[in-house]
Amino acid sequence: MTFSSCGKFSSTESFNSEQNNNMLPVDFVAALRGTFPSERLYTDPVDCYTYAYDNSRKFCPPHAVIFPLTIEEICTAVVLCNQYKIPLVPRGRGTGTAGGSLPERGGIALSLERMINILAVDPANRVIVAEPGVLNQTIQDTAKPYGFFWPPDPSSAMYCSIGGNIATSAGGPHAVKYGTTRDHILGLKAVTGAGNIIKTGCYTTKGVVGYDLTRLLVGSEGTLAIIAEATLKLTALPAVTEGITAYFKDLNSCTEAIVKIMSLAQLPSALEFLDSGSLKLIQNRYPDMLPPDANTMLMIEVDGSQGEIQHTVASILNTCRTTGLINANKTKNTAELWKARKALSPLLREIAPKKINEDVVVPVTALPEFLNELTCLTNHYQIANVNFGHAGNGNIHVNLLIDPDNPDEVHRAGQCLDQIFDLVIRLNGTLSGEHGIGSEKRAFIEKEIDEPTLTLMKDLKQLFDPNNILNPGKLFP
Amino acid sequence: MTFSSCGKFSSTESFNSEQNNNMLPVDFVAALRGTFPSERLYTDPVDCYTYAYDNSRKFCPPHAVIFPLTIEEICTAVVLCNQYKIPLVPRGRGTGTAGGSLPERGGIALSLERMINILAVDPANRVIVAEPGVLNQTIQDTAKPYGFFWPPDPSSAMYCSIGGNIATSAGGPHAVKYGTTRDHILGLKAVTGAGNIIKTGCYTTKGVVGYDLTRLLVGSEGTLAIIAEATLKLTALPAVTEGITAYFKDLNSCTEAIVKIMSLAQLPSALEFLDSGSLKLIQNRYPDMLPPDANTMLMIEVDGSQGEIQHTVASILNTCRTTGLINANKTKNTAELWKARKALSPLLREIAPKKINEDVVVPVTALPEFLNELTCLTNHYQIANVNFGHAGNGNIHVNLLIDPDNPDEVHRAGQCLDQIFDLVIRLNGTLSGEHGIGSEKRAFIEKEIDEPTLTLMKDLKQLFDPNNILNPGKLFP
Repeated sequence: MTFSSCGKFSSTESFNSEQNNNMLPVDFVAALRGTFPSERLYTDPVDCYTYAYDNSRKFCPPHAVIFPLTIEEICTAVVLCNQYKIPLVPRGRGTGTAGGSLPERGGIALSLERMINILAVDPANRVIVAEPGVLNQTIQDTAKPYGFFWPPDPSSAMYCSIGGNIATSAGGPHAVKYGTTRDHILGLKAVTGAGNIIKTGCYTTKGVVGYDLTRLLVGSEGTLAIIAEATLKLTALPAVTEGITAYFKDLNSCTEAIVKIMSLAQLPSALEFLDSGSLKLIQNRYPDMLPPDANTMLMIEVDGSQGEIQHTVASILNTCRTTGLINANKTKNTAELWKARKALSPLLREIAPKKINEDVVVPVTALPEFLNELTCLTNHYQIANVNFGHAGNGNIHVNLLIDPDNPDEVHRAGQCLDQIFDLVIRLNGTLSGEHGIGSEKRAFIEKEIDEPTLTLMKDLKQLFDPNNILNPGKLFP
Repeated sequence: MTFSSCGKFSSTESFNSEQNNNMLPVDFVAALRGTFPSERLYTDPVDCYTYAYDNSRKFCPPHAVIFPLTIEEICTAVVLCNQYKIPLVPRGRGTGTAGGSLPERGGIALSLERMINILAVDPANRVIVAEPGVLNQTIQDTAKPYGFFWPPDPSSAMYCSIGGNIATSAGGPHAVKYGTTRDHILGLKAVTGAGNIIKTGCYTTKGVVGYDLTRLLVGSEGTLAIIAEATLKLTALPAVTEGITAYFKDLNSCTEAIVKIMSLAQLPSALEFLDSGSLKLIQNRYPDMLPPDANTMLMIEVDGSQGEIQHTVASILNTCRTTGLINANKTKNTAELWKARKALSPLLREIAPKKINEDVVVPVTALPEFLNELTCLTNHYQIANVNFGHAGNGNIHVNLLIDPDNPDEVHRAGQCLDQIFDLVIRLNGTLSGEHGIGSEKRAFIEKEIDEPTLTLMKDLKQLFDPNNILNPGKLFP
């Protein structure tokens, strides 16, 4: 078993199928069967197994899994779960990293993976309307022939669903230029925790009628409502994309370049950073992939019209010329640009399958200080550490490479993480740039959100979901 | 008196200063004086007079006006108004068109015009932090030397405040490329109707910690909370801006060009439309300004790098070549580009000072049908009508040129407006693209927002403002 159960850093598994299955009231299951035929209602623990985990690597089995096909079926499930006070945890493809889709308290996993209809393709208005189970990649494939794309690009884009993207306000490398999911949704249909079908936003690019419920639901991690339909705003594909790789002898030269690149008028479409720990891992496995003295690396992408790009690429190459630059080179080959980043992920999984992966954000100008202090902290707590990520947004994936079966290391990692979050807040940053809070970060949310604001958020949860059936226990400490 | 009182289409004025002044409890005023010295607390009706109106041209005097300087003072006012159940209406510069800042039920006008500090100018992170009374133009002037601007550009930009821009999610001609206010706010500090100081969003360009309260407050028209501080996201000024004016012999050729221009990959930075009624007004006053046979007109702006623009301008000029094109010409002179639009506004005020000015939106591809059916409707109801606006967003200012002292005309206009809104909804549009609901459109909001969603919005209002003191009566029917 490679997963740990819902208890943090524990690898013991407490799932008892019979006991759990018995916990669902017989009437409730019978009522569910009235709407969901057997091929769309799993109660066998073995069938439920694959709905017990996500990329947080915890294991929390639901008592049943349902697969609605319509908003009315979602509504029926919500009403029944309210009646019986059964937890209901909406789920896209389960690729989230913060545990947002884990049925921590058992109950029903509501998988949206079969609501996969694209309801409207309207390139003339730059809109696609889709059900939540449609894959991000399917949206890209649908939009591309018309010259458009949908900007949210989490690393799971080939497999993850737009419903999950919306629930987490997913971002990715291109957020530095294009923003995150919340910038690319015009409207939603959803079922609130109270069982009401609501319609938010509009079909047009402008609209100020009533409160902005659309963006309140985006990023709410399935705790307020279940998204049943989304109106996606499309963006024109850039005419040309070019890449630059830049290698530096030291961290400070690299962060100096990041800050300078981000002060140029034209934003890069991606500005990704790999630290010395990342490069060492790659160099150990692939000795010829990188310059031998490379300590830090930037992968930079620029897109736009041909004329626009030439100027920007030249400016960025010039800006990379800090004292510690080894070399900075253009590449037109996207695979070549992302080669080092692609090589890194499997290596990380290999050496520390249960690593802690954070996604903190600091203002770009605070990156030099953040990364230097981060090194001090991980040295102090003797935690192996690798950092990389979306430097253009100041969004760094801090990976603490711990062994969860080593209690002393787990303890030190906990202390270190606490200090890292304090540092992030002190630098005017935020605890999560794209993963969300889910179950993984809820213990820390009070570091960032003050008491009156957090109380208001809890009141909002109560308003949308008075019986606390929707993804209960998530987000809040 | 050129204003009508709060009753729609009525020109009688019911303000009785003594009676109104007496309505504020003596203790309440005394308690206010404990925080607000006399130069920041007006109770004399004459002093209050200028806080009784906005661009909706209604007249609703407050019983007192206060001028807080800090978030704590706002908080004190909110707490006192809760204690005495006194309406509290936040106000920027009173340039709103939907009556959002009118103290309809008397009470306190809370003017933010003296909270004018810019708290941080941080071009390296593309951020300005400012108090709500700072003028939009001041933000532009502050950002410009660093090569940035803040995109929201309502026509009142020289005079209106960012607090008002945020309260209405203000847009303007450049929204077609840059979006509206909600796309350019990173975080807020605010005082809820319950008197709690909350901090929403973050300082960085990415952040998904907790619910998106920032965008819930943007566009909430002062009904949920009073904004005391805003973190504004800046955008790089374009290197070059060029203009195109295009004149058409008929409406259909013009709308055909609009739809085709919006299907080009590169968005224009503005795409403004003037209809035959608008051009006739201009031609009558300025016979030489426009081609004599011009029936409709587009003013198009393109911005970006030099290379980018050349291609886009060429594509747009080519796209304008519909059968009814009279001519389409480039202009590098911004004043020249906007000349006709600038000439129009005073002419409209002259012939119909109490005109009804709507800001409906339809999908761009529905514009041809919308404008044709609109003509049928205004002909049917015999209402003089002029239409212009932000065609790139499908956002049309429909002006019904009525005399509010003609009861028959007022009646017909009411019927016509009702049908126009039905048409907008039928075409999958929205009732307001930038003005908001305020008091002017609340009677129509149910056409667009269904009952469960509207109920949820009312519940949100109740949650943020349990005693209904903040801008009471606005938004909801």
